[in-house]
Amino acid sequence: MPHIKLFEIEEKILFEGYHGKIMHGEKITVAHIRIKANSPLPEHAHPHEQVVNLIEGEFHLTVDGVEYRMLGGESFVIPSNVPHSAKSVTDCYIVDVFTPTRDDWK
Amino acid sequence: MPHIKLFEIEEKILFEGYHGKIMHGEKITVAHIRIKANSPLPEHAHPHEQVVNLIEGEFHLTVDGVEYRMLGGESFVIPSNVPHSAKSVTDCYIVDVFTPTRDDWK
Repeated sequence: MPHIKLFEIEEKILFEGYHGKIMHGEKITVAHIRIKANSPLPEHAHPHEQVVNLIEGEFHLTVDGVEYRMLGGESFVIPSNVPHSAKSVTDCYIVDVFTPTRDDWK
Repeated sequence: MPHIKLFEIEEKILFEGYHGKIMHGEKITVAHIRIKANSPLPEHAHPHEQVVNLIEGEFHLTVDGVEYRMLGGESFVIPSNVPHSAKSVTDCYIVDVFTPTRDDWK
């Protein structure tokens, strides 16, 4: 059974300032992402549904052209194929969830 | 677009000691669960794949008869239909992820 300890997972640099620890189930990918303050993430889209769970920090997420200012304890559901970009204001800790699995990250 | 603020979501008592704030996408359910110390959760199973993300606390999870002792920063992937039970040791904060959605929680 997959008991996963984050400290044992190698961190991947997903984008400059975005350091992720990624785990895959059969249909779910979860990425625990530590983000450095003031790190922009360029617009992108993917067929996976995504739920962004901002555990700590301040994070500005732009979805389909509209900016949402998120604080720790806020989440966002991004439907399939909707373009989104972001910028961290402070250091952030995000638990990102995807279905189906992010095979591009395997 | 679903920008969800946990403080605005009504807490559901999922089981004694397990207080959850639940959000649904199209294929993903995420439950932010605050658990009181020493709260047992009886064995159960469901067709949904589940990823347990223990953010804070100590939590003992028994999956298919084997007990795993989890600390903050650990996760567990529970495949579909595998029986599991649990007991919190301390107060815990868990981000539980399911696919497909938990229609029984809607």
